[in-house]
Amino acid sequence: MLYLVRMDVRLPADMPPAQAAEIKSREKAYSQSLQRDGRWPHLWRVAGEYANYSVFDVEGHDELHELLSSLPLFPYMDIDVTPLARHPSAIA
Amino acid sequence: MLYLVRMDVRLPADMPPAQAAEIKSREKAYSQSLQRDGRWPHLWRVAGEYANYSVFDVEGHDELHELLSSLPLFPYMDIDVTPLARHPSAIA
Amino acid sequence: MLYLVRMDVRLPADMPPAQAAEIKSREKAYSQSLQRDGRWPHLWRVAGEYANYSVFDVEGHDELHELLSSLPLFPYMDIDVTPLARHPSAIA
Amino acid sequence: MLYLVRMDVRLPADMPPAQAAEIKSREKAYSQSLQRDGRWPHLWRVAGEYANYSVFDVEGHDELHELLSSLPLFPYMDIDVTPLARHPSAIA
Amino acid sequence: MLYLVRMDVRLPADMPPAQAAEIKSREKAYSQSLQRDGRWPHLWRVAGEYANYSVFDVEGHDELHELLSSLPLFPYMDIDVTPLARHPSAIA
Amino acid sequence: MLYLVRMDVRLPADMPPAQAAEIKSREKAYSQSLQRDGRWPHLWRVAGEYANYSVFDVEGHDELHELLSSLPLFPYMDIDVTPLARHPSAIA
Amino acid sequence: MLYLVRMDVRLPADMPPAQAAEIKSREKAYSQSLQRDGRWPHLWRVAGEYANYSVFDVEGHDELHELLSSLPLFPYMDIDVTPLARHPSAIA
Amino acid sequence: MLYLVRMDVRLPADMPPAQAAEIKSREKAYSQSLQRDGRWPHLWRVAGEYANYSVFDVEGHDELHELLSSLPLFPYMDIDVTPLARHPSAIA
Amino acid sequence: MLYLVRMDVRLPADMPPAQAAEIKSREKAYSQSLQRDGRWPHLWRVAGEYANYSVFDVEGHDELHELLSSLPLFPYMDIDVTPLARHPSAIA
Amino acid sequence: MLYLVRMDVRLPADMPPAQAAEIKSREKAYSQSLQRDGRWPHLWRVAGEYANYSVFDVEGHDELHELLSSLPLFPYMDIDVTPLARHPSAIA
Repeated sequence: MLYLVRMDVRLPADMPPAQAAEIKSREKAYSQSLQRDGRWPHLWRVAGEYANYSVFDVEGHDELHELLSSLPLFPYMDIDVTPLARHPSAIA
Repeated sequence: MLYLVRMDVRLPADMPPAQAAEIKSREKAYSQSLQRDGRWPHLWRVAGEYANYSVFDVEGHDELHELLSSLPLFPYMDIDVTPLARHPSAIA
Repeated sequence: MLYLVRMDVRLPADMPPAQAAEIKSREKAYSQSLQRDGRWPHLWRVAGEYANYSVFDVEGHDELHELLSSLPLFPYMDIDVTPLARHPSAIA
Repeated sequence: MLYLVRMDVRLPADMPPAQAAEIKSREKAYSQSLQRDGRWPHLWRVAGEYANYSVFDVEGHDELHELLSSLPLFPYMDIDVTPLARHPSAIA
Repeated sequence: MLYLVRMDVRLPADMPPAQAAEIKSREKAYSQSLQRDGRWPHLWRVAGEYANYSVFDVEGHDELHELLSSLPLFPYMDIDVTPLARHPSAIA
Repeated sequence: MLYLVRMDVRLPADMPPAQAAEIKSREKAYSQSLQRDGRWPHLWRVAGEYANYSVFDVEGHDELHELLSSLPLFPYMDIDVTPLARHPSAIA
Repeated sequence: MLYLVRMDVRLPADMPPAQAAEIKSREKAYSQSLQRDGRWPHLWRVAGEYANYSVFDVEGHDELHELLSSLPLFPYMDIDVTPLARHPSAIA
Repeated sequence: MLYLVRMDVRLPADMPPAQAAEIKSREKAYSQSLQRDGRWPHLWRVAGEYANYSVFDVEGHDELHELLSSLPLFPYMDIDVTPLARHPSAIA
Repeated sequence: MLYLVRMDVRLPADMPPAQAAEIKSREKAYSQSLQRDGRWPHLWRVAGEYANYSVFDVEGHDELHELLSSLPLFPYMDIDVTPLARHPSAIA
Repeated sequence: MLYLVRMDVRLPADMPPAQAAEIKSREKAYSQSLQRDGRWPHLWRVAGEYANYSVFDVEGHDELHELLSSLPLFPYMDIDVTPLARHPSAIA
């Protein structure tokens, strides 16, 4: 099932740069492993903002929450989830 | 270039059913022609709402506006546009 | 899978009472059939408002949308959907 | 009487992990004791967020406030309460 | 139990004055009967607006909803309900 | 004249408990003295939140501001004021 | 006592021009009589909007509500009231 | 002086097409005369919406209001005005 | 030209009292000098809040920004500006 | 392609003045280089606020994001982007 997810990153202004870099590095690796196994098929940057729109393709709500809450940046993000159904006019 | 577009349909309560059906029929045909030529690569229903999230792949703002404002349902929709940039962690 | 759904009913002020009564009657019958087959396990009135909070238990987003968009009151409701995952502290 | 309650947890970014773990441990024990005695019949995770939707079944407003303000996470949560009345179409 | 209730009246602009007067007359009589029996202890006008703040003292959510949904103006009002608990510093 | 006032308390997470206790103690004493002299006739807890709704009965805006800005918790509260006029249907 | 009042006019699109002109004419006469007797000391147009910011100087909430609810445009306006107290740095 | 102005057009759904066309035609002529005399230096379409962002260069608030309230579409628009000052980093 | 300005003061909870007192003292002196020379003709306290509504009478946007950004409290305030035009019904 | 961008600066209250000055100095130099090469054709101060409205003229979303995320103040700004299309009534 598909979910559209918007994530807005809010890193504390006083986080040491090395700590931020380490978190982002783990985030990237984790994100790319999910992209590779097909559960994170789309990842786009919101132009001009430290935010992304993503599409996840998972079994259901529990798996989605497991994936999102395991993101290294999870404690520093506002996350908004929209369940996506099939559209009657979609040809794909 | 990619744009995420959310469309919320608000048909007037007093629109005759035949008129609504005719508009929706033209909307569907128009939407499918854009999906087929590759400019409307994703079209999803927001679960539980008369709304969709779509991704458009067009030359730029002018083409996007031309496509959206030509939708038969355009006068009856609230539309929100988000420009999508490439994400540094995206593998695709 | 579980979904929390809030529905706010906005009937047009000029809808003839007989038409409103007929729609509400069909809504009640449809709602009760879904409650009986287990797909609409909770239905509560928001105290003081023409609105309800409901929990649906269905296969996924497509079935949820199918159920909600078939409600006789669907064209007259604002609907908000929240996917519910299992809580790690829940004992049930 | 039933109340729908949404709780959003906002732990300070600089809270020591041991302190956070201790608070969450007490929160879980307290929550489960209330679930066992029937006053907290539903506890769901909002998919993708550090938040929950809960249903409480208590004598009234005073008992609800007593329960919620005793939560170990209470100082770190935004809480929203909706009183739930019986719905005329509910069969349960 | 006490509930703070805000009601904002939105009469349709095209409602015939006689119909509006008749509804308001019934609203006033109904409101005063509830004030006299003690279930509507406070009724205040929001200065400058066609709105009121009220306090209701009833058995619970079901009775509150029964009273509010029986108001002749109910179909034309936005209503917001806040459950009020005893305050630890209150002397009354 | 009457004013409805909502106060939401936001104590800094890092305020020492002894300091918080001292402020709350002074707040309680001050609040009760105003309740006793009749200028703070109603004080209710918003169920589930660290917030209250109050009614003040004072000479006018200047006295209201003097009372509220003298609250020991004033620097840590969001305050919203609504002037209340006599309602034409009120019997009291 | 002083009140800052913002009024946003929302005339129905289908009001006959003669009726609108008649209401506006009465509004203007009424407004000017209140300006002349000193109870409406300031009346400004919000640049670019069919709206105004006004300052009223009246005995209290009841008189303010009496004046505002007597405005010929009252049924067609959104009104927001802010009570103004003396500022400790004001020299006037 | 410069003002940034956003205009959102909301034509009534039941306006006859000929009337809408006539208003839009007058709007276009009026807009272009102001663009030609230099008082409306920028006019952009918000991509995907029946809305525009404009920059006006006029003597002051009174002239701005005079221009905007004379727009044939003025009764059907939501307008938001932002006064623009010189930026200390601007080179133009 | 006239501008209505609302200022909401948000001093950091951990600012030393002596520093806060020094900033407020300079703010008061600066404000009174502008009041005396006629550029800050109205200054009112929003009853119950650490906020004010002010009217400024200056040459234009640049002078307004110069005055406001020179306020000692400027870094600690949320500021909202509304340009005021002459109202056709105003007699002053 | 053109983008309207609003930037609101939120510097932490405890940032050392020398650090703030250094960041602003780099921001100014970077901004002016982009203005000179034509990619940042308009930069205006929002009167009364630490904010600006800007127009960017770039190849597309990726270049816009590259420019904005390279701003020295980027980590301290809320940014809102609106894609601008050609308006059918524009003469330029």
